[in-house]
Amino acid sequence: MRVLILGGDGYLGWPTAMYLSSRGHDVTVMDNYFRRRVCLELDIPFLVDAPNLHERAALWRALGGSRIEVRIGDVTNYEELSDTFRVTEPEVVIHYAEQPSAPYSMMGQREAIFTLQNNLIGTANLVHAVHSLNPDCHIVKLGTMGEYGTPNIDIEEGWIDIDHNGRSDRFLFPRQAGSLYHTTKVQDTDLLWFYVRTWGLRVTDLMQGPVYGVFTEEMRFDDNLVTHFNYDEIFGTVLNRFIVQAVAGIPLTVYGTGEQIRGYLNLIDTLECLRLAVENPATRGELRVCNQFTETFSVNELARKVVDAAASIGINVSIENHINPRIEAEEHYYNPVRRKLLDLGLEPHPLTEEVLTGMLSFVRKHEECIRSEVILPRTKWQQTAAKG
Amino acid sequence: MRVLILGGDGYLGWPTAMYLSSRGHDVTVMDNYFRRRVCLELDIPFLVDAPNLHERAALWRALGGSRIEVRIGDVTNYEELSDTFRVTEPEVVIHYAEQPSAPYSMMGQREAIFTLQNNLIGTANLVHAVHSLNPDCHIVKLGTMGEYGTPNIDIEEGWIDIDHNGRSDRFLFPRQAGSLYHTTKVQDTDLLWFYVRTWGLRVTDLMQGPVYGVFTEEMRFDDNLVTHFNYDEIFGTVLNRFIVQAVAGIPLTVYGTGEQIRGYLNLIDTLECLRLAVENPATRGELRVCNQFTETFSVNELARKVVDAAASIGINVSIENHINPRIEAEEHYYNPVRRKLLDLGLEPHPLTEEVLTGMLSFVRKHEECIRSEVILPRTKWQQTAAKG
Repeated sequence: MRVLILGGDGYLGWPTAMYLSSRGHDVTVMDNYFRRRVCLELDIPFLVDAPNLHERAALWRALGGSRIEVRIGDVTNYEELSDTFRVTEPEVVIHYAEQPSAPYSMMGQREAIFTLQNNLIGTANLVHAVHSLNPDCHIVKLGTMGEYGTPNIDIEEGWIDIDHNGRSDRFLFPRQAGSLYHTTKVQDTDLLWFYVRTWGLRVTDLMQGPVYGVFTEEMRFDDNLVTHFNYDEIFGTVLNRFIVQAVAGIPLTVYGTGEQIRGYLNLIDTLECLRLAVENPATRGELRVCNQFTETFSVNELARKVVDAAASIGINVSIENHINPRIEAEEHYYNPVRRKLLDLGLEPHPLTEEVLTGMLSFVRKHEECIRSEVILPRTKWQQTAAKG
Repeated sequence: MRVLILGGDGYLGWPTAMYLSSRGHDVTVMDNYFRRRVCLELDIPFLVDAPNLHERAALWRALGGSRIEVRIGDVTNYEELSDTFRVTEPEVVIHYAEQPSAPYSMMGQREAIFTLQNNLIGTANLVHAVHSLNPDCHIVKLGTMGEYGTPNIDIEEGWIDIDHNGRSDRFLFPRQAGSLYHTTKVQDTDLLWFYVRTWGLRVTDLMQGPVYGVFTEEMRFDDNLVTHFNYDEIFGTVLNRFIVQAVAGIPLTVYGTGEQIRGYLNLIDTLECLRLAVENPATRGELRVCNQFTETFSVNELARKVVDAAASIGINVSIENHINPRIEAEEHYYNPVRRKLLDLGLEPHPLTEEVLTGMLSFVRKHEECIRSEVILPRTKWQQTAAKG
């Protein structure tokens, strides 16, 4: 299929491009290099500096891969998006092109407005491009499990039937997120659901948990096919951060009690989920919502697993509880359903000690690059108040 | 109280300013003249040309009213908003400054993006200004009954308790709106609810139904204190449009079957609702949601009421069903609760024949200004598709 990946330079975007390319799809990536730009501005290092998209696509081709088209552009610019749409005529668009950091969205007014603007205008432009240029095109949107928050009831897969005063109806599962970033994803869902109902678009919305991992099969050909790997407080997801902390000998930073539970998945499972979504499109007028994670862990469980795996290869690291910079429930019920992607054929890779030691070994190779001062939490959910 | 009214030049904004001013509040209005500008651009006439805000505020003062401060500025510009906030030090902000037209939001990509941008960035800026400059300030936000759509269950007042698999929790009542404009109001609710939970703001969200009427007590002093009155397909609410059609001898345009039911209220009840909300602030950390309407009618019922009232003063007008330009349920259950504003003391003014003949008489005085070609529906919910 002709696949357009928006946000194709990201942690997930580039590995998805190679994964789908190597499975016979005709891939175009589009990106505005937001992540590189903001990491430069905030002085946030990547563990490894990934070559730019043109360089990686050329390398991929030189190593025998299929052509991956590269377009540098911004989805919030409708001209740039619709031009790309016209030229590439995608049958499916994977929409990763969002500002994905909860702490970034809570840094201040400027970052909040950027997050809202980037995420919502991008999604709205995509909807308009699809509706105007090829309403049959399937949109695969990355949502987040964080949209649901931590309700006191079981989390269904996108939808819930509500009985009330003797009548009933089906609704989107209630959403109440824990950061402005996560709230923009809730707003994305509102937007997509409106246009699916009104224009009969086909949309798959993948409610993804935090992803961990760095290495995928396609990277084995050359170290320069690596993806961005962030371990800082802004863009680093929790397990990736812990791995780097273990290697650098920094106690693992558990926020608050550490009893916060989330659903996690391995990067390689993300790629397979995306392939399954792409190859099994939603029907016209369908908003298909899938909960995309493979296992649930508390932060404390993750930390202990990292401590144990590290010990098994001779690294000693401790755990340190920090005052929680976020505002979130630290003790809560959490029971989310995950069925649809398994039904489509997903075979999950659990978080084994082998997976953890693999990640530790990868990071160890780049140990000298670690800048430990970017790891500790500085962005506080309340901080705009402090400035007032 | 010191009240800042954002969108103070609008159909509701200016009457609210006078109403609160005459009841002892210290009022500042801020507006960017969006409505005037877009009506100019789209060649949409007002029934009566209202003087600008500076002129009306000066007239109000000359006639013995209190000073109403005027600031021309845009809430999507954080500098302009926070400057106004610093200078006026409001205890309560009434936020009317949204693009309020469903058809406008469905005209095309440009108008959709404008609506998203204006409504969401405006609300986010307001939240940041309040949190940074005076977190105790009460935000009174205009939502819409349209956020709920037409679910098959009773519509509660903002919140619903859900029992599911033996556990229970309280959530925002499910929202699924019928236009992009209405969807931005759903997204506003998401945004406010997030920041209320996280920053402990005080917010009242008024889920208002379509408003009708034009004359308020405060306008009796001078015809130039009149508010904007739109009767076109873009900005005219249904009953106001019907009144103008009756006077102009144009058959009343009922969209589809006309069995769509909504909750309506008189402009003078809107003003009293706003006063009640202002004088009874939400507490810190509370998102108080009130359903703001006084009676429910189907479009057919409204049309028949207008036909009868018109006949009583010698105007004969017929009803004409049009293909519905919107995508909406035309036969549906509709049973919304309205309790909180009554509990605060609202005494509704029902839609009597006297109210209707009063409106007919007002419009008749300006009969020669009516431009009938702007009334018929041209904006279709599907039209972006047709361009594709």
